[in-house]
Amino acid sequence: MSEQVLQYLSNNRDRLLEKLNGFLSIPSVSTDSVHNKDIKAAAEFLQTYLQDIGFENVEQLETKKHPLVYAEYNQAGPEAPTVLFYGHYDVQPVDPIDLWDSDPFKPEVRDGRLYARGSSDDKGQVFMHLAVFEAFMKTEGKLPINVKVCIEGEEEIGSENLYDMLHEKKELFDADFAVISDSGMVAKNQPTILYGLKGFTGIEITVNGPDHDMHSGMYGGAVRNPIMALSHILASMKNTDEVVTVEGFYDGVEPLSDEERKLIKEVPGEDYKETAGIPETASEKGYTAKEHTMARPTFEVNGIYGGYQGEGTKTIIPSSATAKITCRLVPGQDPDKIQSLLEEHVNKVAPSGVTVEVKKEKLSAKAYKVEPNNPLIQKAADSYTKAFGKETVYVRMGGSIPVVEWIEAIYQMPIVLLGFGTPDDRLHSPNESFPLDSYDKGMETLVYYYNSIKE
Amino acid sequence: MSEQVLQYLSNNRDRLLEKLNGFLSIPSVSTDSVHNKDIKAAAEFLQTYLQDIGFENVEQLETKKHPLVYAEYNQAGPEAPTVLFYGHYDVQPVDPIDLWDSDPFKPEVRDGRLYARGSSDDKGQVFMHLAVFEAFMKTEGKLPINVKVCIEGEEEIGSENLYDMLHEKKELFDADFAVISDSGMVAKNQPTILYGLKGFTGIEITVNGPDHDMHSGMYGGAVRNPIMALSHILASMKNTDEVVTVEGFYDGVEPLSDEERKLIKEVPGEDYKETAGIPETASEKGYTAKEHTMARPTFEVNGIYGGYQGEGTKTIIPSSATAKITCRLVPGQDPDKIQSLLEEHVNKVAPSGVTVEVKKEKLSAKAYKVEPNNPLIQKAADSYTKAFGKETVYVRMGGSIPVVEWIEAIYQMPIVLLGFGTPDDRLHSPNESFPLDSYDKGMETLVYYYNSIKE
Repeated sequence: MSEQVLQYLSNNRDRLLEKLNGFLSIPSVSTDSVHNKDIKAAAEFLQTYLQDIGFENVEQLETKKHPLVYAEYNQAGPEAPTVLFYGHYDVQPVDPIDLWDSDPFKPEVRDGRLYARGSSDDKGQVFMHLAVFEAFMKTEGKLPINVKVCIEGEEEIGSENLYDMLHEKKELFDADFAVISDSGMVAKNQPTILYGLKGFTGIEITVNGPDHDMHSGMYGGAVRNPIMALSHILASMKNTDEVVTVEGFYDGVEPLSDEERKLIKEVPGEDYKETAGIPETASEKGYTAKEHTMARPTFEVNGIYGGYQGEGTKTIIPSSATAKITCRLVPGQDPDKIQSLLEEHVNKVAPSGVTVEVKKEKLSAKAYKVEPNNPLIQKAADSYTKAFGKETVYVRMGGSIPVVEWIEAIYQMPIVLLGFGTPDDRLHSPNESFPLDSYDKGMETLVYYYNSIKE
Repeated sequence: MSEQVLQYLSNNRDRLLEKLNGFLSIPSVSTDSVHNKDIKAAAEFLQTYLQDIGFENVEQLETKKHPLVYAEYNQAGPEAPTVLFYGHYDVQPVDPIDLWDSDPFKPEVRDGRLYARGSSDDKGQVFMHLAVFEAFMKTEGKLPINVKVCIEGEEEIGSENLYDMLHEKKELFDADFAVISDSGMVAKNQPTILYGLKGFTGIEITVNGPDHDMHSGMYGGAVRNPIMALSHILASMKNTDEVVTVEGFYDGVEPLSDEERKLIKEVPGEDYKETAGIPETASEKGYTAKEHTMARPTFEVNGIYGGYQGEGTKTIIPSSATAKITCRLVPGQDPDKIQSLLEEHVNKVAPSGVTVEVKKEKLSAKAYKVEPNNPLIQKAADSYTKAFGKETVYVRMGGSIPVVEWIEAIYQMPIVLLGFGTPDDRLHSPNESFPLDSYDKGMETLVYYYNSIKE
């Protein structure tokens, strides 16, 4: 069954790549309103393509910002399951533009990689699904399963309108399971199933001291220093064993099973020391760097500022100091509860003589985890292995994809994270690229996978 | 003897004030080369005035930056002692200019205060000495003591060239004692003798982690966070009892005697809570805010920065974090030794996985303290009391005046700090002013004082 479809993809490779290049040439940067017409153009590209393939109810759902492209295919028959395919057509800004070796919106192949903003994240991976749908329609006259397509234009700016729409139009997006290709493999050509993602929450702490910067000679010894107070607060939240010391932080976290430790150990990991350029790694006591990164919650100070930051010396007691903190959470941790625990802790340990403000970050997400032995996951792993000729590894990732948590929370549907990116893709950075290997074998994987669902 | 001189000052009050206003109208801002011609004009004003009064060897000593105005008066006779009078004619910048209620370089009297940049720090106080010298010459035909005048143009930018000149031209500046009016009284019309100043040293700590900002999802749990490491380092240097916990920091510090505690208690202090707008003061355990501020060493973080400081969230582990630290020192503490202790401490407590850089600040000074019962001090106190009609208080100050330490170190001469400023003068800030009360009674004090020296 798959042979014909794969043959079609092979025969039409140049034309399809040309078509993808057209899609990548549209600078659909979502954060800058100067690109609103490009956003519109990218949405129209998708709308036209979906219509051409033979999708029904193809439309651009208007939001407060950028349209969401929606489409349905219901001709696989009432017996066939329905998949919700999610992706996004917006891209990150390209600054600093002078660090690009070629125009980010003039796709160019060098050394087997397709260089362009969005080639990996996520226009390239979205296109692969559509090309596979086209191939099925052109060869078999139908898709093996029913499909709902949801491709948004605001992923890089927080997916706020998608969040509302998922809640408001529940039937529209309801399906038997979801497939998302917006992630990567742990190494090039290493089939990788993401079976867990971390949740996310954050706070910003501001310590307010004197109502203006004070002369350190006149007031040193009388006025509490807000930077020092903030340092004491931060130091009380995580110790140098990398253990979070906020009471209740680990409550409900399931212990890491021997089986999972083994799974994690088998993942071909990257050399953190080399990638980060650090003398040695630092992980939670009792866990390896890979275990902590993939499966244990983290607490990071993302930024800090206060007082004089220029050249030389300015002898002041500054009026305030601020730190930005985000945590990555694992199953069993509720983001809202963690936020409250952090806030309570800060208020409890704040020294006298200063006032402390805790701002809770709005965006938060629960961790996501699916059982690796779920049949939908197993089929994906088998398809991967068949296409790439290598055993699939199962990975929990330190990152967060909020839409995954939302879909799970609202619909309780299994979500299959089929990512084809590689660690060298330079997402969000200059010289983003995507290996054509991944492009070809990834589409082959999708052909096997969509075919396998109905079996 | 003093009557005639005081009468002269009174008869010529308007003219002298007009002359001071001319001096204050010159924007002699030393930090900005755009004002180089104004610096020159201010130096020329002083040169001309000193020549007109009758000083000898009046000259502008050229330096690598701004000239130092030098003059001598040797006609008081070989029996009379020689005083080195130090002051500075440069001023701080005026930014933010829109917070000034009147032009900083168009002096204006409002509610008994003379508003202008430099009116208190230090052009106004320098002028008072020159006006008193003029009054002596015009009425008595001579000064009561021999005088060396040293008025520099780089005090607000670190006095670097004066430092070199004091070392290179020792004879030029040598004298029996020094008088400096570049400080203030603890309250308006409260005669105040500064008998101690703190020393000064500083370091800058930079914690380097990964060689670029890392994604907190991918690397959180493997890479030590430099901000967190810096917080642990800082928190280990001073505890929340405001005790410095760097080993050896207090070695050699003389304990505060009961007598001195009594002296400090008697100083009419300001309300730190009110001035700073803080809920309560925070001082070293076992000491009052006034004791700590005036007579105990301090440790302040003046500034901190690292990672993301913009709006919202950026989920990174930053590549580095930096803190600027300065300490105010008391007698018994050597600035170089303290700097080394701080550096050793930082290196000792730095956690693994990061590298730490300690930059030692160049400018440093030892603390200065003179015995309050030194006869030169006693005469100053008596003159003060006679002019202001109030007992003089003896104060140790938290601030540092490096030139005081240099003069003491090089010449071992007693230094009399006769300040006439008030806490409301807003030095270095918009709306700097100087009370005309202080101006009149201050000159009266100087007349009594210079007359009393020869007795």
